[in-house]
Amino acid sequence: MTVPEQDPTGLTHLDARGRARMVDVGDKPVTGRTAVAEARVRMRPDVAARLVAGDLPKGDALPVARIAGIQAAKRTPELIPLCHGIALTAVEVEIDVDAEAGTARVTGTARAADRTGVEMEAMTAVSVAALTLYDLVKAVQRDVVITDVRLRRKTGGRSGDVELP
Amino acid sequence: MTVPEQDPTGLTHLDARGRARMVDVGDKPVTGRTAVAEARVRMRPDVAARLVAGDLPKGDALPVARIAGIQAAKRTPELIPLCHGIALTAVEVEIDVDAEAGTARVTGTARAADRTGVEMEAMTAVSVAALTLYDLVKAVQRDVVITDVRLRRKTGGRSGDVELP
Amino acid sequence: MTVPEQDPTGLTHLDARGRARMVDVGDKPVTGRTAVAEARVRMRPDVAARLVAGDLPKGDALPVARIAGIQAAKRTPELIPLCHGIALTAVEVEIDVDAEAGTARVTGTARAADRTGVEMEAMTAVSVAALTLYDLVKAVQRDVVITDVRLRRKTGGRSGDVELP
Amino acid sequence: MTVPEQDPTGLTHLDARGRARMVDVGDKPVTGRTAVAEARVRMRPDVAARLVAGDLPKGDALPVARIAGIQAAKRTPELIPLCHGIALTAVEVEIDVDAEAGTARVTGTARAADRTGVEMEAMTAVSVAALTLYDLVKAVQRDVVITDVRLRRKTGGRSGDVELP
Amino acid sequence: MTVPEQDPTGLTHLDARGRARMVDVGDKPVTGRTAVAEARVRMRPDVAARLVAGDLPKGDALPVARIAGIQAAKRTPELIPLCHGIALTAVEVEIDVDAEAGTARVTGTARAADRTGVEMEAMTAVSVAALTLYDLVKAVQRDVVITDVRLRRKTGGRSGDVELP
Amino acid sequence: MTVPEQDPTGLTHLDARGRARMVDVGDKPVTGRTAVAEARVRMRPDVAARLVAGDLPKGDALPVARIAGIQAAKRTPELIPLCHGIALTAVEVEIDVDAEAGTARVTGTARAADRTGVEMEAMTAVSVAALTLYDLVKAVQRDVVITDVRLRRKTGGRSGDVELP
Repeated sequence: MTVPEQDPTGLTHLDARGRARMVDVGDKPVTGRTAVAEARVRMRPDVAARLVAGDLPKGDALPVARIAGIQAAKRTPELIPLCHGIALTAVEVEIDVDAEAGTARVTGTARAADRTGVEMEAMTAVSVAALTLYDLVKAVQRDVVITDVRLRRKTGGRSGDVELP
Repeated sequence: MTVPEQDPTGLTHLDARGRARMVDVGDKPVTGRTAVAEARVRMRPDVAARLVAGDLPKGDALPVARIAGIQAAKRTPELIPLCHGIALTAVEVEIDVDAEAGTARVTGTARAADRTGVEMEAMTAVSVAALTLYDLVKAVQRDVVITDVRLRRKTGGRSGDVELP
Repeated sequence: MTVPEQDPTGLTHLDARGRARMVDVGDKPVTGRTAVAEARVRMRPDVAARLVAGDLPKGDALPVARIAGIQAAKRTPELIPLCHGIALTAVEVEIDVDAEAGTARVTGTARAADRTGVEMEAMTAVSVAALTLYDLVKAVQRDVVITDVRLRRKTGGRSGDVELP
Repeated sequence: MTVPEQDPTGLTHLDARGRARMVDVGDKPVTGRTAVAEARVRMRPDVAARLVAGDLPKGDALPVARIAGIQAAKRTPELIPLCHGIALTAVEVEIDVDAEAGTARVTGTARAADRTGVEMEAMTAVSVAALTLYDLVKAVQRDVVITDVRLRRKTGGRSGDVELP
Repeated sequence: MTVPEQDPTGLTHLDARGRARMVDVGDKPVTGRTAVAEARVRMRPDVAARLVAGDLPKGDALPVARIAGIQAAKRTPELIPLCHGIALTAVEVEIDVDAEAGTARVTGTARAADRTGVEMEAMTAVSVAALTLYDLVKAVQRDVVITDVRLRRKTGGRSGDVELP
Repeated sequence: MTVPEQDPTGLTHLDARGRARMVDVGDKPVTGRTAVAEARVRMRPDVAARLVAGDLPKGDALPVARIAGIQAAKRTPELIPLCHGIALTAVEVEIDVDAEAGTARVTGTARAADRTGVEMEAMTAVSVAALTLYDLVKAVQRDVVITDVRLRRKTGGRSGDVELP
């Protein structure tokens, strides 16, 4: 919350506390970075079966969702206001469908050699791939839910390798 | 799945079935459209308390997340490959934090007068607002999870008013 | 400023007052809209003379600045967070250089048939055209100043025709 | 070519002739518009065979190219400076590979109900789909050529239906 | 101004002089770069007071304007045609309101380690933040003016540290 | 073509073969890279003469096309789904018109110091510059054709210097 502060000169400083900013990463070393994120899309088994078969009104959903995820990863700094621009060296989006359970699991991997991590790139990739799946099945099932969007693993940077449960 | 078909002329047609396309909405009437979507971000209660207080390393998170969601709604057709461009007449993103439970509920509303619905705009708004919250708290807690991203309500179009549980 | 409010359920509502939103224009009628904006770029007379002659390190500045302004007008809703998307029917950017006075006057005109005005499109066009002029002369003069960015005229909408001094 | 003209007041008008502008389409009626464009990508027969088989270093090229073309159509006004924004009602990109001849023919169709035609949207769709094919086969063959990018058909607007040879 | 030149082969070379280009910075060393720019927005004192209080029709303007400025800095190469892409390491936008004088001063700071300076990123940040303030107060006051957009300081590169008056 | 594979756990893996991905360039060394591409635009001699004279309905086409090509080069990773983001150090677009033959030859040069080549940036620059020329002459001649879009030269990277016929 922005907290205006009145200073003796009568000028109102709005930036005292809470002011959003892109934090300075200029002094951090360039290291290899990896992040793996995951999302789940829950639908009816019959819809998941059509997803696997590529039999949906807008066409075969899986390649579209993977490409949408890859492209979104590259645009992360445009979408997430305080993210730094990062030259990604690799992005992969994988979708595994368990038709019986009615679940599509989206896994996204982002890599870079940079001063800051690529968690947001991986998280954005899986979110947008999941949204695209939603878009492509929504004509068939309206109450599909995207859930468990989370980071699974990251390597590089000060915190080193981290595996999340 | 693209299914190449060999026709008598020896030409391989790749578009027989499964070919992704932006479906034609040219014959659908222009009607008022509304969609409300929702997402939840789960974090520790102490992190939720700092979110409410605007006390996070990158600054006050809530206005940033709301604006990120609004801007993302406008860019939905760039992110979701088979979505049509829509001139939104209104977008709102609301964030309610239950600090005790450690949950932020993001609600997004999109409106337009168009030939096609605005579900994806509302879903994209809440997803990107949730990703932005994730970005702003991740320095404090690493295993924050975005969950239950779903449509709550839609009005307009052939299916009329729909309330989802 | 976001003002958190505690309600009886214990939930913190952050949206009570001050919450940024794209205001709803769905009920406003579609009318013809025009806006004319202006900016001035002040430089040394010798720099202005080189601008007229097209003799600058990055090439002829004036077509570049005009095109940059036109393209920026189309991207106004991406740049200005709470602006609505508008289908512009015309954009023009004009640059008049008074080499003796060392001034370039940028005039931008935007037109649309829409529910909301095109002031921001005209203002964005002249601002980005002026920034582009700055970029193209800055190798020659460092302290160029952009000034008097303002709306000159608007037509259409509830307020009708308005001429600003 | 910009032609500076000196007027009696000593002001240099750069906009007399040749000044680029987005022409005003505000007075044109809204009509249904269609445009079909085409491009050819010429490669070795063995490369075309791998394209059909989806056996290329970056993966299956055809769905990627089709989606790239569809997405590019939507971004035409950002790429082509003097194009108007258009709310496309449909976009399709089709790719036919003649493996024996070593040719991929890309056909793009754009539709809208608007004041101006959608030729550039169809042309941009096939160009970017062809560039994407080039990107995906270039590791296998370096001298692939994109050729015969042209409009095949347009309907709607003042000129009515036009079929190009 | 583009100057077509007729050469003996009968070919018209349009690029002889004045042709716009992104100048080659490949041979310049990577150094730490900082730029600070400033803009002023002039409004009535009562409007400035509402700006400080966050009491405006579209909501609390200051966080929106700061975020718009930060995001615009990242998109500078898209807006300013001949600017190079730069991986910014930090961006900050600060707004000080002197309600009595009716002035908002926008200060923008951009940092990078790159081959070329970040002046345009700082200038673009303050311009777009100022345009956003304009957008958010224009319903209350129509003749708000953005003025004195200029560079205040730059460090790094061949010219070293420069302070502008 | 995506090939779903059923594994013993009952999970359908869609990524076995053919799955599109941004290949990992993280282990490739950073080297200086150049690429030169070319496109031809074929029109009637009288239209080519008007192009040279800058006498076209939307204004002087050549500076617009050059700038469109430069800007498109910077946006290549947004347009071509599996391209990596590259910090270009230079982009040039040159247009030579042979009015007698009715041909405009567009030459685009891209440079960078990066882990991957800049062929797609040069190819995208000439394609979008050619599309822009098409847009600017299409009111005068409808059946203009873009042809021979190809790479002419590349330097840097594993394959060293390559000259294409």
